[in-house]
Amino acid sequence: MPAYTIGLDYGTNSVRAIIVNVANGKEVGTHVWNYAHGESGVILSRDPNLARQHPEDYVKGAETTIKGAIRDAQNHLKSFKPSQVIGIGVDTTGSTPLPVDKSGRPLAFQKAFATNPAAMAWLWKDHTSVEEAVEITALAKEKRPEYLAKCGGAYSSEWFFSKILHCLRVAPKVFNAAHSWVEIADWIPAMLTGTEAPEKLTVGVCAAGHKAMYNDAWGGYPDAEFLSALDPKLGALRERLQDKAHTIDKAVGGLTAEWAEKTGLNEGIPVAVGAFDAHLGGVGAGIAPGALVKIIGTSTCDMMVAPMRKELPDIPGLCGIVPGSILPKYYGLEAGQSAVGDIFNWFVNYIQPQGERAGSHEALSKEAAKIAPGASGLLALDWNNGNRTILVDQRLTGLLIGQTLYTTPAEIYRALIEATAFGALTIINRFEEYGVKVSKVVNCGGIAEKNPLVMQIYADVTGRTMYVSRSSQTCALGAAIAGAVVAGKKAGGYPSIAAAQKAMTGLKKQVYTPNPKAKAVYAELYPLYRTLHDAFGTEAWEGNLYGVMKDLLAIRAKARR
Amino acid sequence: MPAYTIGLDYGTNSVRAIIVNVANGKEVGTHVWNYAHGESGVILSRDPNLARQHPEDYVKGAETTIKGAIRDAQNHLKSFKPSQVIGIGVDTTGSTPLPVDKSGRPLAFQKAFATNPAAMAWLWKDHTSVEEAVEITALAKEKRPEYLAKCGGAYSSEWFFSKILHCLRVAPKVFNAAHSWVEIADWIPAMLTGTEAPEKLTVGVCAAGHKAMYNDAWGGYPDAEFLSALDPKLGALRERLQDKAHTIDKAVGGLTAEWAEKTGLNEGIPVAVGAFDAHLGGVGAGIAPGALVKIIGTSTCDMMVAPMRKELPDIPGLCGIVPGSILPKYYGLEAGQSAVGDIFNWFVNYIQPQGERAGSHEALSKEAAKIAPGASGLLALDWNNGNRTILVDQRLTGLLIGQTLYTTPAEIYRALIEATAFGALTIINRFEEYGVKVSKVVNCGGIAEKNPLVMQIYADVTGRTMYVSRSSQTCALGAAIAGAVVAGKKAGGYPSIAAAQKAMTGLKKQVYTPNPKAKAVYAELYPLYRTLHDAFGTEAWEGNLYGVMKDLLAIRAKARR
Repeated sequence: MPAYTIGLDYGTNSVRAIIVNVANGKEVGTHVWNYAHGESGVILSRDPNLARQHPEDYVKGAETTIKGAIRDAQNHLKSFKPSQVIGIGVDTTGSTPLPVDKSGRPLAFQKAFATNPAAMAWLWKDHTSVEEAVEITALAKEKRPEYLAKCGGAYSSEWFFSKILHCLRVAPKVFNAAHSWVEIADWIPAMLTGTEAPEKLTVGVCAAGHKAMYNDAWGGYPDAEFLSALDPKLGALRERLQDKAHTIDKAVGGLTAEWAEKTGLNEGIPVAVGAFDAHLGGVGAGIAPGALVKIIGTSTCDMMVAPMRKELPDIPGLCGIVPGSILPKYYGLEAGQSAVGDIFNWFVNYIQPQGERAGSHEALSKEAAKIAPGASGLLALDWNNGNRTILVDQRLTGLLIGQTLYTTPAEIYRALIEATAFGALTIINRFEEYGVKVSKVVNCGGIAEKNPLVMQIYADVTGRTMYVSRSSQTCALGAAIAGAVVAGKKAGGYPSIAAAQKAMTGLKKQVYTPNPKAKAVYAELYPLYRTLHDAFGTEAWEGNLYGVMKDLLAIRAKARR
Repeated sequence: MPAYTIGLDYGTNSVRAIIVNVANGKEVGTHVWNYAHGESGVILSRDPNLARQHPEDYVKGAETTIKGAIRDAQNHLKSFKPSQVIGIGVDTTGSTPLPVDKSGRPLAFQKAFATNPAAMAWLWKDHTSVEEAVEITALAKEKRPEYLAKCGGAYSSEWFFSKILHCLRVAPKVFNAAHSWVEIADWIPAMLTGTEAPEKLTVGVCAAGHKAMYNDAWGGYPDAEFLSALDPKLGALRERLQDKAHTIDKAVGGLTAEWAEKTGLNEGIPVAVGAFDAHLGGVGAGIAPGALVKIIGTSTCDMMVAPMRKELPDIPGLCGIVPGSILPKYYGLEAGQSAVGDIFNWFVNYIQPQGERAGSHEALSKEAAKIAPGASGLLALDWNNGNRTILVDQRLTGLLIGQTLYTTPAEIYRALIEATAFGALTIINRFEEYGVKVSKVVNCGGIAEKNPLVMQIYADVTGRTMYVSRSSQTCALGAAIAGAVVAGKKAGGYPSIAAAQKAMTGLKKQVYTPNPKAKAVYAELYPLYRTLHDAFGTEAWEGNLYGVMKDLLAIRAKARR
């Protein structure tokens, strides 16, 4: 009798549950539920930087999607029974911290705070905490440079402590009412297993390590002295945080009787430590030493792992280097591009050349495919949303060069794709410059699946074969894999992530190999991209270009005031 | 009884005649005729650089438009009689040289050459002679640097000798059959007055000085030794060129009996020395010392005059500094931007954001007008067609910087307008850096008349009041003014260009004055424009950016081969 696991995938606008056959990774049931609160699940305000989620949606989302996925499985597979589900894994967005009371209950569940955005989950893309991020970065630079070395040299406004510190300052009532703060990647598994209370809570190293400066090397989370220098109250919070963070092959507990009853699943089936969507996506795409997994969406997350037995240097510009954050016993290395699909979407949705039909992704891709590499004379920088890796600089903007009086939309579209490919190559080069060899590139996400032009250009620009992950839900599949490992071999699962990946992941047959002629042209274009990249992106480059984008942003800010 | 003159304005696609009241410059009749040959009057071939015109269109154009304008005048003004026309002026495109036989007849009128593009007029925008231009520039740099100093430091592929040398090489039959070559600015007045024969031909200093290295300082056209070094046959042509070039206040002769009969005009009325459209446009816009006249069309021609009694230094980057080329007794100074309206047209016609309606000039201008200076965060270089002044470099391309994921088409459209304004300011600054004070700016052309946003941005960026010429046909009006001067005071005309301008030209009431707040923002943006301008446009700038546009063009050329 086949065993199944559930992967719960909490996204920005919706939650998805999939039920997966543990033997082969095949999806037998799925259900998506759009969050009920806010605009497409996101609570907004007049401040365009604010983005929150209501934790009620996390609870309702688990119930609705698990039940829905079970129904879906039963529809397709008469023999399927919920009792065949042997484990659950959870992936979420992040850093998305949530203030909770002494029992681990979200403050937003209290009547007094039910509509207070500060008491909700602070969604990853909430950018209200820019000043706090600057402050934390400056303090760490001075006092704890080792903290920054593991997260690309700058602490982000999107991350755990920036958000908590901002809450402390702008919503002290909420901060004071909160016993502690929990990443939703940790809170959702805790909710399913009744382990929300601080003394029972299990936190994952993925969120803690990448977003909260957690590292065993310095005793876990940042020390109280450091946090107190930001604010004594933040220092006081330190002792209410967990001492130890865990990898995804550990169970946080068993499914509660209440959840078993609600869903029809067996009570006590293990729920794995939660992790971020992209990281479990890496697992679902078969990440292993030497394999770069690129989750290509609106932005990208580029992940690698490297054995912990070997010393790894700090790699400048990486978003994070965290022991065990992706696979147990491996450093998880995270890089990323701030915008990829978002740049194409900008061109299609905002510029929409020649109207809706001619300006669609499909039409532009079709035209762009006819253009030979180099034939447009265009070159772009992929910085419309800043640069995550390797420059770690949000205050960068787009650039397009080479326009004539005959430049066509398809040429620009292609130049934008090429720009993201050059950005991808820059990340690959950075890994290799620091001894992390990239021997295989596996792509996931809608663009990888649906746009062969993008994949071919990536192959031609990087000079490497592009593989595409077999599953189109790699994040949820990664969560299901964690579920299969915590279930254990005896219950029908696996003894290790590697064993589970071997059985449950795979690649599509369609691969994209570099075209030698195109590769040669891009080998000429990339140095020009690098010249622009370094001239506008680094202070050290001569010629005074570094200030141009910054000055334009400063003038813009004044003009919009 | 009022006196009238005719201005004949030979453009790229059509010819226009206007009949003007000499007393006040008022247009009483007009007629436009589209050339019959080629595509919109331009003969094309598989070589995209080739652009020719058939001289038959010049003859037919004169007859059709003069007769049409007379009919039009009679329709509107019952009292008008063709006999009241006292003189004719002619302006044309240029450099547009035409091979002629010993009698001054175009070779294209011979059956053997009737359909041979090399035997036609080589239109100003014909770019087949790029290699010859490079060769002439190199030779002049070595042997006759003074030639280049008066034409911006480089001899262009669009000019007289480049085209003749190219013909010599690629169409030797035509070259050998030609007795000489004549600019159409000279040939058309000659045709009307029967003075085409070499011994009777009068050439204008405008075409000769700006495009054929003519200067009295070195004895007129380039010497035979110099031309022979390019090719002995070109050297031999030297002695068949005129010794002396003339200003527009001189008549080339009187209207022939044949033309008088064809048109109904009086035989013998004087026809003025021809000049280029932009230069006579300057005259029609009231050019005088201190006044910069900008003819803003697809590109711009920026003209000034400076008294010849004062020594004038060579001004690097100007297209030409020619004694008498615009007004007698003044240096004519010509600068220009390679693309202005063409850049806006590119965005509207090629990119056409959000479809035909939203992407029109009108809709984009309306939206762009709502954007505060600096608020888009964008900055562009106006080099989609290279840079004429001050860099004199065709191998430059466009650049747009500052794009985000929310950048709108109207923001880009405004940035493109601003880029051309920054280009205009760079030209004004160059004049003033070399002692030619700009105390007034007069704009002509469709954009100046129809787009208040462009004019306001020009005022804000340059910090100067923008005036607009009263006539919307300043080129033809300038030609009519020349006609009124060669007619002379006795016949009802004027003793001088200045006297004619005083009576016949004027400004529109609507002026555009700088907004102090906008001016302040642009004062911050212009240095950033200049940084990009100098970084990508000059070899001396540090940081290795100069090569980027050139390399992209070289890669493009290879890719398209």
